[in-house]
Amino acid sequence: MLQTIEVTKTSQKKTKPNHSELGFGKFFTDHMFTMDYSTDKGWHSPRITPYAPLTLEPSSMVFHYGQAVFEGLKAYRTADNRVQLFRPLKNVKRMNLSNERLSMPEIPEDLAMEALKNLIEIDKEWIPTEEGCSLYIRPFIIATDAFLGVRPSSTYKFMIILSPVGAYYNSGEQLQPVSIYVENEYVRAVRGGVGIAKTAGNYAGSLRAQTEAEKLGYDQVLWLDAIEKKYVEEVGSMNIFFKIGGKVYTPELSGSILDGITRTSVIELLEHWNIPVEQKRISVEEIFEASERGELEEIFGTGTAAVISPVGKLKWGERELTVGNGKVGQLSLDVYNTITGIQTGTVEDELNWTLKID
Amino acid sequence: MLQTIEVTKTSQKKTKPNHSELGFGKFFTDHMFTMDYSTDKGWHSPRITPYAPLTLEPSSMVFHYGQAVFEGLKAYRTADNRVQLFRPLKNVKRMNLSNERLSMPEIPEDLAMEALKNLIEIDKEWIPTEEGCSLYIRPFIIATDAFLGVRPSSTYKFMIILSPVGAYYNSGEQLQPVSIYVENEYVRAVRGGVGIAKTAGNYAGSLRAQTEAEKLGYDQVLWLDAIEKKYVEEVGSMNIFFKIGGKVYTPELSGSILDGITRTSVIELLEHWNIPVEQKRISVEEIFEASERGELEEIFGTGTAAVISPVGKLKWGERELTVGNGKVGQLSLDVYNTITGIQTGTVEDELNWTLKID
Ligand SMILES: Cc1ncc(COP(=O)(O)O)c(C=O)c1O
Ligand SMILES: Cc1ncc(COP(=O)(O)O)c(C=O)c1O
Repeated sequence: MLQTIEVTKTSQKKTKPNHSELGFGKFFTDHMFTMDYSTDKGWHSPRITPYAPLTLEPSSMVFHYGQAVFEGLKAYRTADNRVQLFRPLKNVKRMNLSNERLSMPEIPEDLAMEALKNLIEIDKEWIPTEEGCSLYIRPFIIATDAFLGVRPSSTYKFMIILSPVGAYYNSGEQLQPVSIYVENEYVRAVRGGVGIAKTAGNYAGSLRAQTEAEKLGYDQVLWLDAIEKKYVEEVGSMNIFFKIGGKVYTPELSGSILDGITRTSVIELLEHWNIPVEQKRISVEEIFEASERGELEEIFGTGTAAVISPVGKLKWGERELTVGNGKVGQLSLDVYNTITGIQTGTVEDELNWTLKID
Repeated sequence: MLQTIEVTKTSQKKTKPNHSELGFGKFFTDHMFTMDYSTDKGWHSPRITPYAPLTLEPSSMVFHYGQAVFEGLKAYRTADNRVQLFRPLKNVKRMNLSNERLSMPEIPEDLAMEALKNLIEIDKEWIPTEEGCSLYIRPFIIATDAFLGVRPSSTYKFMIILSPVGAYYNSGEQLQPVSIYVENEYVRAVRGGVGIAKTAGNYAGSLRAQTEAEKLGYDQVLWLDAIEKKYVEEVGSMNIFFKIGGKVYTPELSGSILDGITRTSVIELLEHWNIPVEQKRISVEEIFEASERGELEEIFGTGTAAVISPVGKLKWGERELTVGNGKVGQLSLDVYNTITGIQTGTVEDELNWTLKID
């Protein structure tokens, strides 16, 4: 039987920001979801309360040993004013995969889904209606034992917070191509490590390379495999796709990249459209060779924040290539329009991806 | 000019635990040190206050992207009732190395040293006097921006908390040998990653392997290099040394292991004693071969918590070796007695390692 989620509503709603000042992850709604875990009680006390700071011991394990996982998904408002989520169960399942890798307790899928739905229902007036805007949903779990020994925590907090967001990339138009720096020194993850998990440390580890790439004038970093530094892995918070000679390729799930939900959806959509798509090991060399042969048609990143982010330029050591004269490719555009259309209810959801929550 | 550390003393001191119940990292003293960072003000408001919980926004970056570094060192009480630290400046410098790798702001060395000294002075009655016990010092820095974008935080908290500790390994006698499982599937770090930094995510990533090794009956995990899975890196929170045919070897600083302060001290001590010691790439195969030739004399781990932890057994796939019939080697014992003697003031500090703070 599902545990009852106790609800305490705020007595003082916040003023909502104007959509033009939204940005990403700066504003938070009126409520949040919390539940606690302890080894003896399991997950308990699920509750929705007014959004408020957390009080934690300075010795809380999350501060020291980084036992923390998170997810990211969005709620969209449709033209007929309904609210829907995009494949939310996949996020819950991926969170449990992350939990497993980080020796953290599994969350009950149905309770997590209930929590998501109830919280969004309560704060649904926060979902922006302007194009490209949405309500970003951030479920996360942190280790809370007040203890400095290195071992899995025996207590945790699972929380969901909500943030109304504008466009992820502040580069004006949504489908403006980004420039990518192929990172040759730093690595994000390696086989046998935690790259498959959406865990805090993966992002901390990526900051230095990202900052250095920005200094060189590039928007994002493309990670290579840590072993041979030859094969393409993924971008900052996106998976990556290449269209070469009419066919689409994306790196296989190597054990060190995130199994992106947008990635899966793009693959399924391309298959649905009968466009050949292959998951395989892809070397940077191959990409540059395809470009030299004139066969590199498009490159795009996929992720919840950007949905589709076309790549206009790729820098690798001394070499640099431009994709499609820096213009956005047709496939990138089609995939973008279809997925965002399904998300916002303007395109029929043939693949049954959305969940209406009201 | 050094910033003044503002001090607010507690009006209600806690009851101190009995030394037999200390364990590791469970109890905390009456005060803590905090200072804040913001991009415009730099590090500011250094203060010592009563030990108390932290209040943080649920969106604080440390919970999501793990931008967090820490250090670990100890304060010891000498026989003549003085208080001393063991090479504390090395911890401050290493913390700045970690900061650099994690795109976090450098802390002023002299201010950090003042903070350490002042805080310990105030809580010095918490330093246990029983053999093997000490006051564990945990400086740490966490990212505090209330923001979900992936980029370095612009605000941080640097804190120091203190915990009176007993023996790290709860296996009774301090120099009881541990059994080690050579980890062949999971890895801790890789060249180009964050293995050289003392950052939260490295520890989260190690939990699963540690738990699985314990289930198989081993105390700790020995990590191999992530690329070839051949070369020895380090143990859980220790560096590792091998004595083979009269000579001592330890893995070189490969870029993926922690530059341990106990490791450095052991190397310096051995050199001081004219015992040959070499830092090099060491394969597990070599260790097993040396054992088969009867030349493997000792293995021991080094780290602040354990100081020296002799290894009695090594398990690698189907192979297993026993070191010195499972007994503690003479060199392990000599190094242990000398370093702990210097730390507690019973052995002359010829190498000038300690800092008296009162
Ligand atoms: C490292 C990384 N890769 C890829 C992705 C894309 O995953 P998804 O499509 O599920 O958002 C993300 C998440 O946003 C990510 O953080
Ligand atoms: C991963 C790791 N390796 C080695 C060590 C040993 O370093 P130190 O001798 O400075 O304590 C530690 C820290 O305790 C550690 O966490």
